[in-house]
Amino acid sequence: MIPIISIVGKSDSGKTTLIEKLVPELTRRGYRVATVKHDVHGFEVDREGKDSWRHKQAGAHTVVISSPKKVALIRDEEKDLTLEEIREKLIQDVDLILSEGYKKDVQPKIEIFRKEKHKKLLCTKEDNLIAIVSDKKFRVGVSCFFLDDIRGVADFIEKKYLQAKREGEASLKVDGKRIPMTPFVKSFVTSTIKGMLTPLKGCEHPERIEIEIHIEEGKN
Amino acid sequence: MIPIISIVGKSDSGKTTLIEKLVPELTRRGYRVATVKHDVHGFEVDREGKDSWRHKQAGAHTVVISSPKKVALIRDEEKDLTLEEIREKLIQDVDLILSEGYKKDVQPKIEIFRKEKHKKLLCTKEDNLIAIVSDKKFRVGVSCFFLDDIRGVADFIEKKYLQAKREGEASLKVDGKRIPMTPFVKSFVTSTIKGMLTPLKGCEHPERIEIEIHIEEGKN
Repeated sequence: MIPIISIVGKSDSGKTTLIEKLVPELTRRGYRVATVKHDVHGFEVDREGKDSWRHKQAGAHTVVISSPKKVALIRDEEKDLTLEEIREKLIQDVDLILSEGYKKDVQPKIEIFRKEKHKKLLCTKEDNLIAIVSDKKFRVGVSCFFLDDIRGVADFIEKKYLQAKREGEASLKVDGKRIPMTPFVKSFVTSTIKGMLTPLKGCEHPERIEIEIHIEEGKN
Repeated sequence: MIPIISIVGKSDSGKTTLIEKLVPELTRRGYRVATVKHDVHGFEVDREGKDSWRHKQAGAHTVVISSPKKVALIRDEEKDLTLEEIREKLIQDVDLILSEGYKKDVQPKIEIFRKEKHKKLLCTKEDNLIAIVSDKKFRVGVSCFFLDDIRGVADFIEKKYLQAKREGEASLKVDGKRIPMTPFVKSFVTSTIKGMLTPLKGCEHPERIEIEIHIEEGKN
């Protein structure tokens, strides 16, 4: 599962600037980073009159614009997505997700704080605060970094979230709903499926197995 | 698997307009449609100076902008994606994908043709042409519709691609690569997994099962 860390802080505390510095530092270290920004007012990402804009105006639920170097997607949602839903529905092929804001989400948070701007921290350890980046020292039981210590923050993220060995993991969804599995069931499902597939060409030493099954109506 | 149909035609034949008319007709019938547009010159979908634009400039591989009614994503790619890759990586929760262009892709195609603009069709049955929308009659072994017969085209798509009962399907990917399965293997995998999961709570009558397994390094 891709780790998610939220960069939180009161307005004008420098969240975007911190992300702008962290992303290249982590990229330089070989990690791929996705960022998530919440936009409560809605947004326009396409230009009026463009073909893709016309598709969306015509009522397409999802519009994809694909080019040789990048791809864009706009899709309707019925409600605000949580970071976990965003990870599940939209993000793949990256090592880390950094969100800007999302202070009410359950994910681990790094708060940026400037003493000349505000008096009190936004989050506490109970909000899943894992670190503070500030020009002031705090003793609240979480790691503190100076505002310019981007390498320190990157070291912290790397050590805590990126170097953890990928444990044997298994996830199961039925009809779109995640089904919890006990460790025993996980290991049973994993070993049964691995064993079943081993004779197939290309499945000799799998590291990641993905299976999707649709069952014909009336056949279950 | 979500069906894909490409609306193809020479330049200025009215591809975008046809999509603009088909999308609301299909939406009115209760289907959710995604569209895909190829943009060979690249594109800008975000505004200079916006936070999400700054994230991308800083080198984020993927940027997501989320709002209560829609979500947008921009991600780097190393090459042009095929329609199948776009479906797999990006599109979900829709009933049909209509692409504009993609005449070289393998997906089924509907060609739009105007006699005053061009002399010859772009595609043949060998290119997986399934229908022609035109002000001229063609006898090339595929269905023909008049330019204004949007309901006829929608009927055709609905009958051929949207009402087909979802057959028992199973797909398997190992380390990101699709592994082909014979019908026997498919049915073996499906029944084994179904049987294994049936005792779990919430898995009594599954219609869609998705499993993802990560195997710890050195354990295979």
